[in-house]
Amino acid sequence: MQITANWNGKRSFTAEVPSGFPIKMDTNEQYGGEGKGNTPLEMLLSALAGCIGIDVTMILKPYLDQITNIRIEVNGKRGEEPPKPLTDIEVVFIVDGNIEAKKVWRAIHLGKEKYCVVSASLAADVTFKLILNGQVS
Amino acid sequence: MQITANWNGKRSFTAEVPSGFPIKMDTNEQYGGEGKGNTPLEMLLSALAGCIGIDVTMILKPYLDQITNIRIEVNGKRGEEPPKPLTDIEVVFIVDGNIEAKKVWRAIHLGKEKYCVVSASLAADVTFKLILNGQVS
Repeated sequence: MQITANWNGKRSFTAEVPSGFPIKMDTNEQYGGEGKGNTPLEMLLSALAGCIGIDVTMILKPYLDQITNIRIEVNGKRGEEPPKPLTDIEVVFIVDGNIEAKKVWRAIHLGKEKYCVVSASLAADVTFKLILNGQVS
Repeated sequence: MQITANWNGKRSFTAEVPSGFPIKMDTNEQYGGEGKGNTPLEMLLSALAGCIGIDVTMILKPYLDQITNIRIEVNGKRGEEPPKPLTDIEVVFIVDGNIEAKKVWRAIHLGKEKYCVVSASLAADVTFKLILNGQVS
């Protein structure tokens, strides 16, 4: 896949992407930007959430009618040495609905092992947690 | 850093992020989506372009007035085995302006080594190419 990012001046770039939805990126004033766009790091963590989320909903398709809510929290920890790469990423699935925990866990594991290109492309250790109907499951 | 992605139904998620600019993600009909948002893979490649682009413009700040255009093309190649991780990523800087190639190369290398969290967090081999005023430099 190819994407193209065009410079808007200062620290701002706009990515032209295959989906057709351009993404404006920027950084904050501390680094000479104007804070008028997404930061690359939040995009990377969001890409991970979207990737595993899409895979899990694909795998759980027969049960989606019974699921009322899915919220995915992604927390990335960075190393100390510049450029401070992500070292550990925790992905927390918060799911509500009438579904067994083992079905959700199977979808998470299958998603990670077979489908999720973003997770597989990261050097960091990616771990998962499931909170189903308010209970760690 | 933490981000949160909320499910919109089908394969769609919206990420709430520290910058305050939400990102809607989706996949195409083939995977049960509606193609109404960014795909995770294009976000990952865009994050890489934005990250190294922001770093290069930060390092080249004294020379930005002399640069008329910066375009960054990112091409990601994936492995054969599921989940087909990114294995090789080529980042092409297409720069126009009155600036020496060695200054741009220094900024690219320094950006990668010291600043770019996205590049440093990927398992793939990331290589760079510079086309300055129409010439491979």
